[in-house]
Amino acid sequence: MSTPYTRLDKNNAAVLLVDHQAGLLSLVRDFDPDRFKNNVLALADLAKYFNLPTILTTSFEDGPNGPLVPELKQMFPDAPFIPRPGQINAWDNEDFVKAVKATGKKQLLIAGVVTEVCVAFPALSALEEGYQVFVVTDASGTFNEVTRDAAWSRMAAAGAQLMSWFGVACELHRDWRNDVEGLGTLFSNHIPDYRNLITSYTTLKARK
Amino acid sequence: MSTPYTRLDKNNAAVLLVDHQAGLLSLVRDFDPDRFKNNVLALADLAKYFNLPTILTTSFEDGPNGPLVPELKQMFPDAPFIPRPGQINAWDNEDFVKAVKATGKKQLLIAGVVTEVCVAFPALSALEEGYQVFVVTDASGTFNEVTRDAAWSRMAAAGAQLMSWFGVACELHRDWRNDVEGLGTLFSNHIPDYRNLITSYTTLKARK
Amino acid sequence: MSTPYTRLDKNNAAVLLVDHQAGLLSLVRDFDPDRFKNNVLALADLAKYFNLPTILTTSFEDGPNGPLVPELKQMFPDAPFIPRPGQINAWDNEDFVKAVKATGKKQLLIAGVVTEVCVAFPALSALEEGYQVFVVTDASGTFNEVTRDAAWSRMAAAGAQLMSWFGVACELHRDWRNDVEGLGTLFSNHIPDYRNLITSYTTLKARK
Amino acid sequence: MSTPYTRLDKNNAAVLLVDHQAGLLSLVRDFDPDRFKNNVLALADLAKYFNLPTILTTSFEDGPNGPLVPELKQMFPDAPFIPRPGQINAWDNEDFVKAVKATGKKQLLIAGVVTEVCVAFPALSALEEGYQVFVVTDASGTFNEVTRDAAWSRMAAAGAQLMSWFGVACELHRDWRNDVEGLGTLFSNHIPDYRNLITSYTTLKARK
Amino acid sequence: MSTPYTRLDKNNAAVLLVDHQAGLLSLVRDFDPDRFKNNVLALADLAKYFNLPTILTTSFEDGPNGPLVPELKQMFPDAPFIPRPGQINAWDNEDFVKAVKATGKKQLLIAGVVTEVCVAFPALSALEEGYQVFVVTDASGTFNEVTRDAAWSRMAAAGAQLMSWFGVACELHRDWRNDVEGLGTLFSNHIPDYRNLITSYTTLKARK
Amino acid sequence: MSTPYTRLDKNNAAVLLVDHQAGLLSLVRDFDPDRFKNNVLALADLAKYFNLPTILTTSFEDGPNGPLVPELKQMFPDAPFIPRPGQINAWDNEDFVKAVKATGKKQLLIAGVVTEVCVAFPALSALEEGYQVFVVTDASGTFNEVTRDAAWSRMAAAGAQLMSWFGVACELHRDWRNDVEGLGTLFSNHIPDYRNLITSYTTLKARK
Amino acid sequence: MSTPYTRLDKNNAAVLLVDHQAGLLSLVRDFDPDRFKNNVLALADLAKYFNLPTILTTSFEDGPNGPLVPELKQMFPDAPFIPRPGQINAWDNEDFVKAVKATGKKQLLIAGVVTEVCVAFPALSALEEGYQVFVVTDASGTFNEVTRDAAWSRMAAAGAQLMSWFGVACELHRDWRNDVEGLGTLFSNHIPDYRNLITSYTTLKARK
Amino acid sequence: MSTPYTRLDKNNAAVLLVDHQAGLLSLVRDFDPDRFKNNVLALADLAKYFNLPTILTTSFEDGPNGPLVPELKQMFPDAPFIPRPGQINAWDNEDFVKAVKATGKKQLLIAGVVTEVCVAFPALSALEEGYQVFVVTDASGTFNEVTRDAAWSRMAAAGAQLMSWFGVACELHRDWRNDVEGLGTLFSNHIPDYRNLITSYTTLKARK
Repeated sequence: MSTPYTRLDKNNAAVLLVDHQAGLLSLVRDFDPDRFKNNVLALADLAKYFNLPTILTTSFEDGPNGPLVPELKQMFPDAPFIPRPGQINAWDNEDFVKAVKATGKKQLLIAGVVTEVCVAFPALSALEEGYQVFVVTDASGTFNEVTRDAAWSRMAAAGAQLMSWFGVACELHRDWRNDVEGLGTLFSNHIPDYRNLITSYTTLKARK
Repeated sequence: MSTPYTRLDKNNAAVLLVDHQAGLLSLVRDFDPDRFKNNVLALADLAKYFNLPTILTTSFEDGPNGPLVPELKQMFPDAPFIPRPGQINAWDNEDFVKAVKATGKKQLLIAGVVTEVCVAFPALSALEEGYQVFVVTDASGTFNEVTRDAAWSRMAAAGAQLMSWFGVACELHRDWRNDVEGLGTLFSNHIPDYRNLITSYTTLKARK
Repeated sequence: MSTPYTRLDKNNAAVLLVDHQAGLLSLVRDFDPDRFKNNVLALADLAKYFNLPTILTTSFEDGPNGPLVPELKQMFPDAPFIPRPGQINAWDNEDFVKAVKATGKKQLLIAGVVTEVCVAFPALSALEEGYQVFVVTDASGTFNEVTRDAAWSRMAAAGAQLMSWFGVACELHRDWRNDVEGLGTLFSNHIPDYRNLITSYTTLKARK
Repeated sequence: MSTPYTRLDKNNAAVLLVDHQAGLLSLVRDFDPDRFKNNVLALADLAKYFNLPTILTTSFEDGPNGPLVPELKQMFPDAPFIPRPGQINAWDNEDFVKAVKATGKKQLLIAGVVTEVCVAFPALSALEEGYQVFVVTDASGTFNEVTRDAAWSRMAAAGAQLMSWFGVACELHRDWRNDVEGLGTLFSNHIPDYRNLITSYTTLKARK
Repeated sequence: MSTPYTRLDKNNAAVLLVDHQAGLLSLVRDFDPDRFKNNVLALADLAKYFNLPTILTTSFEDGPNGPLVPELKQMFPDAPFIPRPGQINAWDNEDFVKAVKATGKKQLLIAGVVTEVCVAFPALSALEEGYQVFVVTDASGTFNEVTRDAAWSRMAAAGAQLMSWFGVACELHRDWRNDVEGLGTLFSNHIPDYRNLITSYTTLKARK
Repeated sequence: MSTPYTRLDKNNAAVLLVDHQAGLLSLVRDFDPDRFKNNVLALADLAKYFNLPTILTTSFEDGPNGPLVPELKQMFPDAPFIPRPGQINAWDNEDFVKAVKATGKKQLLIAGVVTEVCVAFPALSALEEGYQVFVVTDASGTFNEVTRDAAWSRMAAAGAQLMSWFGVACELHRDWRNDVEGLGTLFSNHIPDYRNLITSYTTLKARK
Repeated sequence: MSTPYTRLDKNNAAVLLVDHQAGLLSLVRDFDPDRFKNNVLALADLAKYFNLPTILTTSFEDGPNGPLVPELKQMFPDAPFIPRPGQINAWDNEDFVKAVKATGKKQLLIAGVVTEVCVAFPALSALEEGYQVFVVTDASGTFNEVTRDAAWSRMAAAGAQLMSWFGVACELHRDWRNDVEGLGTLFSNHIPDYRNLITSYTTLKARK
Repeated sequence: MSTPYTRLDKNNAAVLLVDHQAGLLSLVRDFDPDRFKNNVLALADLAKYFNLPTILTTSFEDGPNGPLVPELKQMFPDAPFIPRPGQINAWDNEDFVKAVKATGKKQLLIAGVVTEVCVAFPALSALEEGYQVFVVTDASGTFNEVTRDAAWSRMAAAGAQLMSWFGVACELHRDWRNDVEGLGTLFSNHIPDYRNLITSYTTLKARK
């Protein structure tokens, strides 16, 4: 068993959003833009929902990479925000690592643009320092599928666990009874098929 | 030239939204659900933006087909809404045709679920009666690509013009100077790549 | 308008099933086998449901092409069955044409294996003799998508209308009120997504 | 060798069917619906055929997730059926684990909807407790291929073996001579290409 | 009906093989090389089998385009072979047109590399001069699918009929009884699935 | 024949490059960026090579759409360059139409971003005014393949001919002997496979 | 490093061809039939070329699975041929294992139909007994890509090395100087692109 | 963790370019030719930019494999260039290994044609001798995706890290502040989307 199961725990997890910048997003071509935007916002929403400490960072946002997408800034007004002056691997930035350590969490959920650099580099560095690393694959984008597959292989070989935002939400929540409405709303807002199920169900129920 | 150019005119166009129902949407598999939801809402938004008369219709919404998706109902509270008691081709429903005629428009923008039935049947009937028909292809969904391709072939052969919601918006607007902000907002809300361009642009401008 | 709308009429339509033979089916690779089997049986079911005169024919069924698939034989025990002694185009077989004429119908629904031969040849011949031809595209299979696209182009250019079995069923039925349960059963048996809608709906209704 | 070969043994295997519910199935988009339905029923059939203890479980079936698909309920009227009141990971439900333990089997065949949650969570938990876990990949569905690939990577890294229902049937049966007709029927019912081979073969044989 | 049916007639058809040269073949990427090689040789075989007058031509074969593939040269030692000194459209070469006219045939089967140039140009020119043109689509290759689709659209709009080598063979042969073994051998040599059918069939027959 | 062959003539053709702007290019997802850049530059190169009058136009280049890509500006320093103040259809801009008319050409090669708007609208308008329109499909990009297919259908139905830059170059050149080296260089610069053929050929020749 | 490099050695390798039967081949859909046929024959040719001991086996060849494809039988008239009376895993057949042991080789190249059964089962069994196992992936076929991916994952996790027939040939040959013509002929016969390179090269050379 | 993170260090890395020859490139079909050419030149450019010792090697370049592509030769006029007289695995050539050792580097970046042979063989050999191996996946090409996937699996299982040229550049550079313009130019020359960002940014900045 090369990477045994470690289970996400909402009391021990933090979210790192790396370089979701307006310019860099034009590089992402392994996801349809509608789907990718939805995935990133879903991850942000779940971070809020579970009150996970969240850290934002950008690379060179005064240049062509562009600013952090405004939605993320608005959703996390008080989160540590580390505009890196030049380090490509966020883990090379002392403030970033300090912010991670300050959370006191040992499980890191990482997503970013582009996958093989902004996600893979801090993921590999964090693994080396003993963190449990969970890559949120569908909130991480890159140039094409070939590049993504290579990046996944490298991260998985080093012990990262590959997940989706939906899997993350479910593993953190554990039991619907903790809050049916909250989780249902999260899914309804980000999974059109799920929203349709709810619409049909509630309409029919109301009709009785 | 089998189908000569007829140009969309915002003073002569109406929108027909056919059977975008919560249950039926689970049948749509020629589009990713995130993209399809966005396309349908974009078409609805443009109908509002250009003040196009819009007609809503559903098939059997008390049964498994489910209710009209709530967003559409909310956006068009005063639009004619014709829940058909059984006719599969909306054009076989007198109220529907009456509502179309009442708009006084000769150009019909049609979208719906599923493409080869709920879109194709009224599109073909309307062509037969002399209307100019524009199929909004990306706000119309069906079981798979094979089925879609066959439906497109049949409609195009009968004289329908195949368009996208973006093409429709541009052809109706004609000149950005008619309203830069309005059209820009429409695009920003429904085209993530376009929103990113605007974000980068306005951020950089503001910084001066 | 190169091919104006002609609408299927259940009192004027016949079904031609050409060469759905156990051996020939191994040639079909433009559809997944599970889907293709379902499509062919759905077309057969709708032919029964609408009481459309149906004609079966095979090519060389004593040789490697193999026998007609048993389900079709069982479903149409009294239908004209013309095992052609050699003619590749079924329309070159006098008995076949006689059987078609004997139906007295002017609208022909054609499906078969392989698309560019067993479907296209009789479709083109029937068009030439003034029949209205509707190709049931998803109950017709061939070697690959390239071949299929070429065959579709040739048939559409000659005036055939490309449809799916679902579109055919809907156009023939016209109004759900003619028989809700019958059509619902047809769809439930051949569209898993639709069956799921019905299951959820009836379960919830029963629970009230 | 990260995961050495452990061979399925029909005397030591149990089947866990997790959340194949009418509503949730509308979320499955990494398989064509015709194929997916067939795969799930094939797995159910093989469980019956080999008399494997089978456990059914659902999540929230009174809500929008919908009821267990009726075919499964009918096929396993006496199987333990655990409608979970809220636990997302079936392994968090005591009754479920008790039912698993009660089988006395050490090899667990798991399939469900959606793959990265309803399959992966109990699979990872079972591995942790020392079970041999076999994921029936083609009877497990989810939102898209990206999500599936990530889930597979996580499960394989933890020691799960990825299989198909056909591979499972073959590994359990071991020798055709144990029952030619039974296995042949199973394959004929769920593999159209195989059925065609049998049809051609038996027809030709009968003709002698 | 934009292009009415004209049926291939083996007494009125000639084959034009345009620029199947060893160098140019490296440009073909809309077909897998194994399949494309097979398709070209199948077309050549059928030309021989039906004794169709065949004309070979190349463009600049002393330069990087390379020589005609040797198999074609060997199969048609006595066919008119027109190495064009520079004309890109073979129809601009007087000798080529003279050779076509010398056949006395009115139906031209054209295949070549690359589709939008070496096939489309002479196809369009021949149509203009009143020939019936049949493009053998799967023995014609080009850079990618986009380019191919555009070329097909242009040729079909001008009245060319799109076919496959298999469709051509069947339409020329008309009736298996004209020669079962000959046509069977042609198919067996170029359609692995068909060969397998024959192998199974003849083996089983012999066993009786 | 819906659109008879009209042949490109280098003395009667002009090139219209519509809205190849740095911002808008981020919307293009029906082509890989490396390929699309190459196709656009290849079209520009061939316009220069054949001395075709070329007209450049942009939409709102001071806003988020961004400036014309610098390569095009540098290649055509003296070409008419019409930054449109607002018209979406370039043909609605008087200066643009005047520039087209000033060329005295009747054959228009049009390419741009995005296909269904910036290409389709002027293409349809030009057809209406009697021009022969050739869409350079692979130097025109848009959001996705669905949108592209719909746009192609609309333009082809109105009489536009769909081509690739390579087909255009070949049809304009007609005979290699007009200039072997020039055309060879054009191809070598934009078709890696062709360059490789030339490299191998010239290396081997030089070695003698 | 989960599976360290072990290098193929032509003096220590044997080839196992499992169940390449005429009937079973109709199940293979993860490869185009032209390509698959070529890959299997290429593997057979290289086994002959390198004089590798080769073992043939079939499952139930008197039934619908059909006979071994005749080409393989003809190429290896003296090879051990073990028609298994019922064992699905060839390694469960004593004669087969005896034949493997009789070769005295420790490196096994395995290919067959279908991948997750006829290849995976003996591959896993052989690994367990200490053999070095090399799966010839492209001469092994199955129902679809999902099934193949799962089978590859299982075999690789157990220590099998995944290769292609071309990689096998190159690793066995090691140095072109051992025999340029022999290896060149093997490649020329099975790689159309390579044959074209040779054709162009030898033609140009001969012309000097 | 099967392959722990080892980080690229520009003072400890060398680049091996294996068999990027004009003839062999015609075999590469897992990448579009435009993209592949760009990727290879990007890797070459970054090798120059970071002053990494680079070694070139070819196989049989006097024969049909053809010469090294001229761009690579021109870019590295003084690099060790080892035309191998016959060894397929470059690591079997003493001069090549000597050249590698002479660099004194322990991290090897390997790219070549074709992936499963010219890349995989030396990669596996170098791993065996204790080197850290980084495969530049997108500058390495082969016959098709199936073959590539198998080769990646074999190399990753033996401990190679799979990367892209962009990931390599970023990991070597570490901090933009080391040289903004240099890295920006590298990206601008090889990533059209990135160049567009820079164009828009600098144009807007200049306008202030």
